[in-house]
Amino acid sequence: MAETRFDVVGIGNAIVDVLAHADDGFLAEHALAKGAMTLVDPVTANRLYAHMGPAVECSGGSAANTIAGLASLGGAGAFVGKVCDDQLGDVFRHDIRALGVTFDTPPLRDGAPTARSLILVTPDAQRTMQTCLGASAELAPGDIDPDIIAAARFTYLEGYLWDPPKAKEAYLKAATVAHDTGRMVSLSLSDPFCVERHRAEFLDLLEDHVDVLFANEAEITSLYREDTFDAALQRVRGHCRIAALTRGEKGSVVVSGDETHVIDAEPVDRVVDTTGAGDAYAAGFLYGLTHGFGLAACARIGGIAAAEVIGHVGARPDTSLKRLVARKLG
Amino acid sequence: MAETRFDVVGIGNAIVDVLAHADDGFLAEHALAKGAMTLVDPVTANRLYAHMGPAVECSGGSAANTIAGLASLGGAGAFVGKVCDDQLGDVFRHDIRALGVTFDTPPLRDGAPTARSLILVTPDAQRTMQTCLGASAELAPGDIDPDIIAAARFTYLEGYLWDPPKAKEAYLKAATVAHDTGRMVSLSLSDPFCVERHRAEFLDLLEDHVDVLFANEAEITSLYREDTFDAALQRVRGHCRIAALTRGEKGSVVVSGDETHVIDAEPVDRVVDTTGAGDAYAAGFLYGLTHGFGLAACARIGGIAAAEVIGHVGARPDTSLKRLVARKLG
Repeated sequence: MAETRFDVVGIGNAIVDVLAHADDGFLAEHALAKGAMTLVDPVTANRLYAHMGPAVECSGGSAANTIAGLASLGGAGAFVGKVCDDQLGDVFRHDIRALGVTFDTPPLRDGAPTARSLILVTPDAQRTMQTCLGASAELAPGDIDPDIIAAARFTYLEGYLWDPPKAKEAYLKAATVAHDTGRMVSLSLSDPFCVERHRAEFLDLLEDHVDVLFANEAEITSLYREDTFDAALQRVRGHCRIAALTRGEKGSVVVSGDETHVIDAEPVDRVVDTTGAGDAYAAGFLYGLTHGFGLAACARIGGIAAAEVIGHVGARPDTSLKRLVARKLG
Repeated sequence: MAETRFDVVGIGNAIVDVLAHADDGFLAEHALAKGAMTLVDPVTANRLYAHMGPAVECSGGSAANTIAGLASLGGAGAFVGKVCDDQLGDVFRHDIRALGVTFDTPPLRDGAPTARSLILVTPDAQRTMQTCLGASAELAPGDIDPDIIAAARFTYLEGYLWDPPKAKEAYLKAATVAHDTGRMVSLSLSDPFCVERHRAEFLDLLEDHVDVLFANEAEITSLYREDTFDAALQRVRGHCRIAALTRGEKGSVVVSGDETHVIDAEPVDRVVDTTGAGDAYAAGFLYGLTHGFGLAACARIGGIAAAEVIGHVGARPDTSLKRLVARKLG
């Protein structure tokens, strides 16, 4: 087995987030599903944008956020995702490369624009996302470079990739290359509505292709159609090598074979915006796994990273997670 | 004299800010003039951007920030400035209109892209700006709608407009229309380096065209080539109807004829990013002037608005200034 150059290569939608504050009345008025990611067409996105308040643009995308978090922790990351050759595509490329992440997917020329996600942050810090996939839906198997997959200890996929048909094929190609070259595959379920849309495929995937699963409470109970967290926990044990299940302020639970860890959430002064909390947790957990930490420490690092990200607006860390973790772990 | 529809119409560069953290070593390495706004060509801007860390994009531009602040205070504002018909132009238009500001300047088609300002925020909260004017330099006299100028109690100009030649003509047209229709004109000196570039013209302007002047300590001492704040203060008195001079943590001084007010700075928990402090002060001051407040109260409202803006990253208010001022003024 050749040496690896990357701790994790993430594959996901390459999205620029457009973040604005909104109240619950605004969500109701526009019939938006609070807390969820909903796919919208460009016309709907433009109509909503016209009604939104002033916004801030930051690079986002679930798996891309995770790789950004990994880089902030000092890990070596690569990202695969499709932008267009436009201004927001330049922003996305700049931001991820500025973190030292390898990002070489060729941009789409003269096609759909770079994906945008209109994110409404309510006063309770919840985020409601309306995503217009644009160019990111054009990710195709040809964009998967087998050399990069083989050079990464983990290939990390976001469940959102199941929405655009070509992207799913790209993922299956990547997962196959990863396992054929002795690497590991990790999946995030992304969103309970995403699980609703792709439950059967996700269950098959867990059997065959996933070593490390990330899911929050709503996602894991939806996946197994269970009413309680504990019931879902019993189902997932043994379904993949490691499952890391996040529960917001209740912390996280990690199961692997007979091993179970229940880890408290990291204290947060003030929860401002939960966008990217799960992505940051996955970053910390995978950093830990690829740097010799035990499962409990991996969950702790994930929790520290998530706590940083929810303390400010925006889905990516605002400070060096490496220094933060060094201070907290002592 | 016809009724007014606007408290203030701002004319300025229509810019999207690209904000990133940087340390003093980075500024030194790239030979950047700390605390200043420097004009750069697109090649230089792209080279610097390639070396910058991950960034956040927000609508900016000095006069545009002031009009945004005025709107947040509950004032009626309009803005005139040139964007291109591109993604960042859409962002700029969205953000300012979302605040209820009238913004109808037609975008440039197929020309230079929307202006960007690369803003590096150092750990001491100072901002160093490298601005690529792009489309905003194409603002021309034809973009000045005399009906809008005549409908505003104040026409507010940023000194930065003296950099692109056509924009200066646009400003002089606006100032003439304003005075011909019995309105008032206000100018911000913008930046000490901007004053160096255009000192003689600014001094002439103050004689003929400016009712209310905004300047910080570095700008006003540069304008009169004086060594001390007090010496400059004596010079500016009588040079325009009202001068509001900001001094950072020392507060502000307002002079008008024989009247002088020395107003303390508003306390701030933590200064995060001073970008936009002067713009916000001007917003509060002009809101006060157009809503029947005395000069001391105008300065206080300016200080409250500035304190809000320097408490977070980004040049525009993050909360309703109207509610904030109502609470503080009791």
